[in-house]
Amino acid sequence: MYSATIQKLIDLFSQFPTVGPRTATRFVFYLTKKNKEEIKELVSAILELKRKIRFCQLCFNIFEPKEISQQKCEICLNPSRERSLLCVVANEIDLAAIEKLKKYNGLYFVLGGLMTKFKKNDLEKLRIKELEKRVREDSAIQEIILALNPTTEGEATALYLEKILKPFQKKISRLGKGLPVGGELEYADEETLKSALEQRK
Amino acid sequence: MYSATIQKLIDLFSQFPTVGPRTATRFVFYLTKKNKEEIKELVSAILELKRKIRFCQLCFNIFEPKEISQQKCEICLNPSRERSLLCVVANEIDLAAIEKLKKYNGLYFVLGGLMTKFKKNDLEKLRIKELEKRVREDSAIQEIILALNPTTEGEATALYLEKILKPFQKKISRLGKGLPVGGELEYADEETLKSALEQRK
Amino acid sequence: MYSATIQKLIDLFSQFPTVGPRTATRFVFYLTKKNKEEIKELVSAILELKRKIRFCQLCFNIFEPKEISQQKCEICLNPSRERSLLCVVANEIDLAAIEKLKKYNGLYFVLGGLMTKFKKNDLEKLRIKELEKRVREDSAIQEIILALNPTTEGEATALYLEKILKPFQKKISRLGKGLPVGGELEYADEETLKSALEQRK
Amino acid sequence: MYSATIQKLIDLFSQFPTVGPRTATRFVFYLTKKNKEEIKELVSAILELKRKIRFCQLCFNIFEPKEISQQKCEICLNPSRERSLLCVVANEIDLAAIEKLKKYNGLYFVLGGLMTKFKKNDLEKLRIKELEKRVREDSAIQEIILALNPTTEGEATALYLEKILKPFQKKISRLGKGLPVGGELEYADEETLKSALEQRK
Repeated sequence: MYSATIQKLIDLFSQFPTVGPRTATRFVFYLTKKNKEEIKELVSAILELKRKIRFCQLCFNIFEPKEISQQKCEICLNPSRERSLLCVVANEIDLAAIEKLKKYNGLYFVLGGLMTKFKKNDLEKLRIKELEKRVREDSAIQEIILALNPTTEGEATALYLEKILKPFQKKISRLGKGLPVGGELEYADEETLKSALEQRK
Repeated sequence: MYSATIQKLIDLFSQFPTVGPRTATRFVFYLTKKNKEEIKELVSAILELKRKIRFCQLCFNIFEPKEISQQKCEICLNPSRERSLLCVVANEIDLAAIEKLKKYNGLYFVLGGLMTKFKKNDLEKLRIKELEKRVREDSAIQEIILALNPTTEGEATALYLEKILKPFQKKISRLGKGLPVGGELEYADEETLKSALEQRK
Repeated sequence: MYSATIQKLIDLFSQFPTVGPRTATRFVFYLTKKNKEEIKELVSAILELKRKIRFCQLCFNIFEPKEISQQKCEICLNPSRERSLLCVVANEIDLAAIEKLKKYNGLYFVLGGLMTKFKKNDLEKLRIKELEKRVREDSAIQEIILALNPTTEGEATALYLEKILKPFQKKISRLGKGLPVGGELEYADEETLKSALEQRK
Repeated sequence: MYSATIQKLIDLFSQFPTVGPRTATRFVFYLTKKNKEEIKELVSAILELKRKIRFCQLCFNIFEPKEISQQKCEICLNPSRERSLLCVVANEIDLAAIEKLKKYNGLYFVLGGLMTKFKKNDLEKLRIKELEKRVREDSAIQEIILALNPTTEGEATALYLEKILKPFQKKISRLGKGLPVGGELEYADEETLKSALEQRK
């Protein structure tokens, strides 16, 4: 129904996370109202992202280097962070969620996703080898926190990582499961309530 | 708009938990379709409830006595339950939720609600005195689990109970807070994520 | 898990419209907190409903007679209502919704439900014969408004009624379909938007 | 918390319709995973949109001209469309929703929004003058359909347009209001049910 140019952009926006064709269409109509300068600003910002952003060699978080030779992110370079703690997260959003708490002062490792099932190609997309290498080479690490979603995927990934990381004989921990703040016992699912009861303190 | 008889019943049903006037009206219309026997069955069941159900003298859970002299509920009378654990719950629904897990084998105490704020009359409605008495008199108790909602009300009540129960020098624990099963780190509120991180294991 | 007496009442409440076992359980616990007088009040109100309420001989709406010989509801007896308009509704709730508008001044006929599909036994539960009789015998009726839900069931019922009522040669109308007040064109389903366009005025 | 480059793009995406900072952040992380070619494809599509898309001189819908001199959209140029009907819509999305029905064969006019209140600057953003000019100059128009949301804004705009367009002595109609397809009488708001009753047919 839309012209090729419009449809092309609808299709591209439809691939954005959480965006369906209806929202993608609204994005396109939104852009048609923008003037040349505004479009240029958006396009530049997208190109800048590609040009300036790097993945940290150590934790694989994205970062913006201050000088061309910088290969590690601010967190990994920060001398006041505890090097004994390594928090494994699925992606940058989860890393950001933990950083925002200002409670965790260790380092991170961005796995790049979760196993959907025990599929080989899933595992290949994750940075399992890189994690092993990191743990092997960094003797400062004492505890590895698997900060993965308490979902089926997260649990499967955690189990797999525990197996992989066991030989390194570090302490491996997982986030506490239990009742979320503001939640109600009556509506908690059974697994959550079981965990809450077991992890009482 | 409705006749006195109908309106009266709408008003009474509107006081039921979770029921508003619209649902109460549906209840009344539902009952107008029932025949005499069905109405009698419902009325008998309500009267039976009042006649047969008692509150356990020990834990204040409701129960149906097997003989007229029975003053304690099945759980309190069950010799295979661990008498060292006392789980304090706000109401019978929360007790039922924990029983359903088949994981907890201790005893209970039904508090009768939560403090909405630090109001005197709130406290008077709760079985605080009875809880104190129970803990004072039952030397078998070693741990008191405050299984209260991790809401503002639940936390306030737990704090108050901790103060009240401190002199008895029993271990006092609370349910673990953290990510609920199936939840996602990204969408967890900050307090929940903090708890999950602190209570990692 | 619950005693026979409690479970019996949970089962009965679970049959109430919109009520599941969880809510039914809450109802029972709610009632255990009530004293004898309160229970008696509820039970009396339920019994009164059965005793006092009748179905109007003309429109089948429920009503509370002012004297023992009264066989018709206030609406049907009201001389200022227009006797030329007959509004067919599925049930008393829909009748009440229309009355509340204070816009309609005709009479009603309560059908007793909608066809779920073109099933014989569905039709037998509805007051089709009674509607035919009413239309046949009441020569004052000039327009029959089929005020049925614009759902599959409502449309099927309306089609069926139109066929049945055609021989009486009265004007037969249906509620206008279109965009609901506060709705948005963009989110309207296609059938609704088509109707809105066709019924523009 | 994010670097300047990332934050800049988060801010720009946050201005997209329906997008908040959280979703904007996900968009940015999504883009960091894309390779150079994919980024180039997106950027090109955005630039193409600006380069190729025009607003129709007649109806102000956006369109992609087939040749450089084309100033009117396909709909306005289509000789088989009825020139007697002019459907005024708030924006291109609403136009698209109506076109999708394949039921309307007249022409359109895209107003560019709705009045939020009777504010002067709101009106200035809308193509009121252009609409007046269009109606004045196009003698083929016989009916103007105000296909605006039945919301407070839509109704206010429709009232205002009716006043403005009255001197041209064309038939002015609005979309039918009533029960949406699949809706239920019982849950309809009063204004909707009133309209449905008034617009019965």
